[in-house]
Amino acid sequence: MSETMRAAVWHGKQDVRVETVPVPPSPSAGWVKIKVDWCGICGSDLHEFVAGPVFIPTDAPHPLTGKQGSVILGHEFTGTVVEVGEGVTNVSVGDFVAPDACQHCGECITCRAGRYNVCEKLAFTGLHNDGAFAKYVNIPSELCYILPNGISSEAGALIEPLATGYKAVREAGSILGETVVIIGAGTIGLGTLMAARAAGAGMIIVLEMSTVRAAKAKECGADVVLNPNECDPVAEIKALTQGSGADVSFECVGNKFTGPLAVDVLRNAGRAIIVGIFEESSSFNFFSLSGTDKRVIGTLAYTLSDFQGVSTLLANGQLKAEPMITGRIHLEDIVEKGFWELINNKDENIKIIVSPGD
Amino acid sequence: MSETMRAAVWHGKQDVRVETVPVPPSPSAGWVKIKVDWCGICGSDLHEFVAGPVFIPTDAPHPLTGKQGSVILGHEFTGTVVEVGEGVTNVSVGDFVAPDACQHCGECITCRAGRYNVCEKLAFTGLHNDGAFAKYVNIPSELCYILPNGISSEAGALIEPLATGYKAVREAGSILGETVVIIGAGTIGLGTLMAARAAGAGMIIVLEMSTVRAAKAKECGADVVLNPNECDPVAEIKALTQGSGADVSFECVGNKFTGPLAVDVLRNAGRAIIVGIFEESSSFNFFSLSGTDKRVIGTLAYTLSDFQGVSTLLANGQLKAEPMITGRIHLEDIVEKGFWELINNKDENIKIIVSPGD
Repeated sequence: MSETMRAAVWHGKQDVRVETVPVPPSPSAGWVKIKVDWCGICGSDLHEFVAGPVFIPTDAPHPLTGKQGSVILGHEFTGTVVEVGEGVTNVSVGDFVAPDACQHCGECITCRAGRYNVCEKLAFTGLHNDGAFAKYVNIPSELCYILPNGISSEAGALIEPLATGYKAVREAGSILGETVVIIGAGTIGLGTLMAARAAGAGMIIVLEMSTVRAAKAKECGADVVLNPNECDPVAEIKALTQGSGADVSFECVGNKFTGPLAVDVLRNAGRAIIVGIFEESSSFNFFSLSGTDKRVIGTLAYTLSDFQGVSTLLANGQLKAEPMITGRIHLEDIVEKGFWELINNKDENIKIIVSPGD
Repeated sequence: MSETMRAAVWHGKQDVRVETVPVPPSPSAGWVKIKVDWCGICGSDLHEFVAGPVFIPTDAPHPLTGKQGSVILGHEFTGTVVEVGEGVTNVSVGDFVAPDACQHCGECITCRAGRYNVCEKLAFTGLHNDGAFAKYVNIPSELCYILPNGISSEAGALIEPLATGYKAVREAGSILGETVVIIGAGTIGLGTLMAARAAGAGMIIVLEMSTVRAAKAKECGADVVLNPNECDPVAEIKALTQGSGADVSFECVGNKFTGPLAVDVLRNAGRAIIVGIFEESSSFNFFSLSGTDKRVIGTLAYTLSDFQGVSTLLANGQLKAEPMITGRIHLEDIVEKGFWELINNKDENIKIIVSPGD
C-alpha cells in the first residue's frame, strides 16, 4: 500500500482539486479503512463546489470530528474493507460494503432514541470528515452495510441517495392507494418516486421542468408529469383529485417556492414530506396548517436499517439504480466531467459516479 | 314563544349591534332549535369585531350555508333543545346540550374520512351561519353533545374551546413524560396546558408575556413560565433540556414570529403543533425541518368525540373550566363589557361568557 493517494479535495468555492495526499492512517478503535470502488457526486457536493462552504465547517472545528476547512468530498460509495481497528467485530477485511455517511456521537438524546441521522453533532462523511473521492477512506465500522450478492458495486453506490427517498416515504406513514405528488425528479425525487411506487401509492404526479428528467420520472413509474412552468400545478393537481388535492407530497428540490407548494398541493389533513436542502427562507403562512389539519414532516438522510430495506428492494427490482446513472468517470476528471458537467448540463444529468481506479 | 328575539349581529368591522331579530324558524329536517343558556366570546369573534371580515363571508354566499354578510356571532355555548326537525333521533326536546360548531357537508373526502372539522365546505356556527349570541339558534342535530350530569352550564360553554386544545394534544401523539412548550396562555393555551398535563407530560414550559395569564398558567399546571420579552426563549428552553430542546411544542398565539419559534424550541425529531390562527405570513426556512426530522402538525377545531373526552376529564377534574372564566355578562352588554373589555383589558381576561337571559 502506497503512503500517498489521489483525492478530490475541497478548498473553497469553485476550488476542488484532485491532488496527492497521504493515505489515511491505520484505523483507530472501532473504525475501518475502505478501498473505494465507486462514489457518486451528490447535490450537496455540487452545492459545496458552487456556493460553498455550505455545510463544510470553516470557522471552527466540527464538534464531533474536529475537522475544519479543506476536506476530501464524497459520501455515496462502495468499497472493500482493507483494515479494521481494535474491537471491530461487525465487518472483516475483504467485506464489500456500502457505508452509511452519518457519523454520530451516540450520546445525545436523538442518538439514544435511535435517530442518529439527526445526531446533535452529526458529521457527514465527505463534508465534516474526509470522504470517498479518494482511493481510501476511514469510517466508523458501525456505518458499514455489507452489500449482499446480486447488487452491483455501481448500484451499491446509489444505496445512500436511494435510502434518503426511502426514509422519506417511511416518514409519510402508509401511502397505500394514495395520490402522491413528488416535486422534483433529480436523484432524490426519482428515488422517492420508486419507493412510493413500491409502497403501493395510487396515482403519482411528478412536478419537473426538465424534459429529460420528466422522461426519467415516467421511466421510474410516474403516472403524470407536470411542468410547473407550463401550468398552475395546484389547479392541475386539484383537477386530478376531484377538487381536493393530493394525500401526500414530497418536496425534493429545496427551493423557497417549492416548500410552501408542497403544502398547497395537499387536500385537507394531507401531509407534506420535506426532503430538500433549502438555502433561502420561504414566505409561509402557518394558517395553511392550523386551518386544514395538514402536516409537514422534515426528513434528513436515513439510518442503516434503511440501507437494508433499499438493498432488498434493489434485489427484487422494486428500486432500480441504473436509470439514475448518467455518467461514469475517473477521479482525475471529477472537476471537468463531474462538477462542471452537472452545472453546464444540469437537465441531462441525474447521477455521475466516480472511480478512483486501481 | 315570541316571534322576535335579541341577538348580537356582526355588520362590519367594529360594528356589532345587539338588535331585535326574528326568532329562527322551525328547524328543518335533521336540525334542532336550541334555547341558549351561556355562550363564550371566542378569539375569532373578537377578531371579526376588531379586523373583520376575517372568516365571515361577505363577497359571496358560503358554499355550505349560503350565508353572506351580517351574521349572529357565537359558537361556544350550552342550551336546551326546544324543537326538533324531521328525522332527528339523537336528541329530544328538553335535552341540555353543548354543541360542536363544525357544520359540514358530509360528502367531501375529509368528511368521509371522519375529519369533518376540515370539511372542504366547513361552516362554523356563528361565523358562516347564525350563532348563539341570541336567545335561540338552529343547528344540525348531529352536532349536539348532551351534557352529562355533574357539569355546569357555565363549564359546558367551555367544552368547545377546551376541545380545541384537547385535540391539539391528541394530534401530538403520546407526550407521556415529554418536555412540552406551550406558546401563549389564553383560552386555547390554557386548555392545551391542562390537556397536556392530563396526557402525562413531563415538564411543561409556558411562554407568556402577561403576568395575569402567567399566573393562570401556573394555576393550570405549568412547571415553568417564561416571558419571551425578558429572555431568549430558545436559549432558556435548551438550558432546561440539557441543551437539546423540547420534545413537543404547541403554538397557541397565531403570530408570525411564534410559528417559526414553535419549531426552534424543539430538539431534533421533535414536533410542533400549530393551533393559532395566523393573519400574517412568516419567514420560515424549510431546512429547519429537512435538516432535523422535525414535524409541524396543524390542527383545527375538533370532532364530537373530543367533546366526549373533554367532558370526561372535566367530570374527573383533570380539566377545569372555572379558572378560565373571567367574566359573566348579559347579552345586552356584549359590546362594551365583552368585546371592548377584551380589547382594553386584554391581559386580565381569559374567557367572558354571555347569557341572553330569559
